[in-house]
Amino acid sequence: MTELSPSFFIGKQGNGVISFGSGQPDLPPPEKVRKIQHDEFRYGPVQGEEKLREKLSNLYPGSDANSFVVTNGASEALDLALRALNLRGAKKVLLPRPYYYSYPHLLKFSGMEAVYTDTKDGKLDIKDVEEKVKDCSVMLLNSPSNPSGRIEEIETLKELEKLSEKHGFYIISDEVYKDLIYERENYLIAGDKVITVNSFSKTFSMCGERVGYLWGRDKNLIQEIIDIKTHTSMNTNLSAQERAYAALDVDEDYKRKTLEVWRHRRDLIYNQLLQMGFEVAKPEGAFYVLPKIKNTEKVCWELYKHHGVIVYRGEWFGAPDTIRLSYALDEEKIKKGLRIISSYLNQ
Amino acid sequence: MTELSPSFFIGKQGNGVISFGSGQPDLPPPEKVRKIQHDEFRYGPVQGEEKLREKLSNLYPGSDANSFVVTNGASEALDLALRALNLRGAKKVLLPRPYYYSYPHLLKFSGMEAVYTDTKDGKLDIKDVEEKVKDCSVMLLNSPSNPSGRIEEIETLKELEKLSEKHGFYIISDEVYKDLIYERENYLIAGDKVITVNSFSKTFSMCGERVGYLWGRDKNLIQEIIDIKTHTSMNTNLSAQERAYAALDVDEDYKRKTLEVWRHRRDLIYNQLLQMGFEVAKPEGAFYVLPKIKNTEKVCWELYKHHGVIVYRGEWFGAPDTIRLSYALDEEKIKKGLRIISSYLNQ
Repeated sequence: MTELSPSFFIGKQGNGVISFGSGQPDLPPPEKVRKIQHDEFRYGPVQGEEKLREKLSNLYPGSDANSFVVTNGASEALDLALRALNLRGAKKVLLPRPYYYSYPHLLKFSGMEAVYTDTKDGKLDIKDVEEKVKDCSVMLLNSPSNPSGRIEEIETLKELEKLSEKHGFYIISDEVYKDLIYERENYLIAGDKVITVNSFSKTFSMCGERVGYLWGRDKNLIQEIIDIKTHTSMNTNLSAQERAYAALDVDEDYKRKTLEVWRHRRDLIYNQLLQMGFEVAKPEGAFYVLPKIKNTEKVCWELYKHHGVIVYRGEWFGAPDTIRLSYALDEEKIKKGLRIISSYLNQ
Repeated sequence: MTELSPSFFIGKQGNGVISFGSGQPDLPPPEKVRKIQHDEFRYGPVQGEEKLREKLSNLYPGSDANSFVVTNGASEALDLALRALNLRGAKKVLLPRPYYYSYPHLLKFSGMEAVYTDTKDGKLDIKDVEEKVKDCSVMLLNSPSNPSGRIEEIETLKELEKLSEKHGFYIISDEVYKDLIYERENYLIAGDKVITVNSFSKTFSMCGERVGYLWGRDKNLIQEIIDIKTHTSMNTNLSAQERAYAALDVDEDYKRKTLEVWRHRRDLIYNQLLQMGFEVAKPEGAFYVLPKIKNTEKVCWELYKHHGVIVYRGEWFGAPDTIRLSYALDEEKIKKGLRIISSYLNQ
């Protein structure tokens, strides 16, 4: 059996293969974004184009253009924030489990160590958090969660704000799915030691453009992050920033409509999985679901190899005995894929 | 006096200020590059678009598409290579002085330590290199050099190939100015432990696009670098890669013509500096020159503040008692700027 990993499955879709693997929305980007043409080839500011940061600041109360850094996707924003905090001496990072599969790698690359706190049905156990975070300088938060699709309660987020203030740890809040919440509005966690990470990839289906950003109130930390980016990648691609700027002009109707598409798929896949007998927590945001199942290595391999269906092992996200299904694919494919999984499991 | 640094001067040109600071070519990108339109918003391969890597492999004997990684400029290529080597246990890096000002920062960010070897008139002292490199796992090489504009002799490069083989250290060869050599063709340093870093920024005047790449024969290391990029930034912007692909189709005439523009400016600035009485090594590549001068902090500040001319302190590049002048600006400005410097120094 080949060594499986998310990388193994990249480029494996198409040719009749149904992939519940990718985190790539299948919806097209808004027309406004698609039609942008750009013709500027000189270096831009490392921090990001001022007009883009200015416009972003309208979305974040208490922010201004200087408190943002535009990055090569949320990935670079996370990496830069971790590197900057590591340079300040941060060593231990509290990591809720399950986690987005890049997090432990990013910690390793920055020479930091993960301290894990296990969630219950995808929700933080705040007592365990408080106990363990005392040893940590940073906490990574991801609500809505990839891979579980669960969100934290607003009460919990407020509790975290207090804990950060009390114990002095930084919160890196990865909110790339903040516009894809089915249950309530997003609650923007805030504080002097909060760094919010976001991206244009998921909301506007522009993953390949690689535009993300971070913002925070700690102006020194923002400057330290710019100083790192000055040497490690310089400005984010300028035409991509132009497209991101256009995306912020897209009317709320676009977001509402795409959210309804996602909600419909969420209901479909969740109800089907229940009917198929899975134990599974209901996704409240993002476009992932994490049903429980044993022998995931075998299941994942055989489903792909013999039945042309890609699912990811929960183990890659710190959730053994689960599989992660992305529902970033159209309804017909979801239905067909689930039928194949069902008949495979019943055989 | 304000704390001076290259960042301080970003955005300070224009409004009559003459800048010898920026490493941004003032020539326009080729027409073929400018007219590219692109409409692909999905994730691409982290390693880079296959057709681009395929085309690059035609330029590097003994390479294939798999031995390249397309990056967010040469900066990210350098950063990724250093991080990958650090993860393999590399701690000490031999750094010829003067150096490109990002290098010591990149080493710090990767938790590595610089061991310095001083060049003589910008050329490596191969005895000193051999002595010091025994303690190092990596050597950083930058020929043509930013800031000195000097190139290493082909003999020296061949010597380094032998040393790398004998002592087992990696050579990261930053060749972003390889198409801007006035004295001879580029000699492509090669070996099992050589990683070549390059970029489309300087040759094709497309700095803001941020497309660079690295290639190496060590397939495991290439995979380790891809693994890092998978988590730290994912694919390089796709439309920028499309432009880079178009750039590789630009005929040799473009390169020849731009090289002549650079050579003409090189001759102009070098001869003028000699006439002004400076002690200065003749630039053989890139578009920088590094004349000797005392009190560079005062000179740099006063030239900017009172005379509207930007020059960089050699100190930022490990070359105290020099200033770096970039000649990436048109002849009239070069002449005018030098006149101002001359009258400032004679006052």
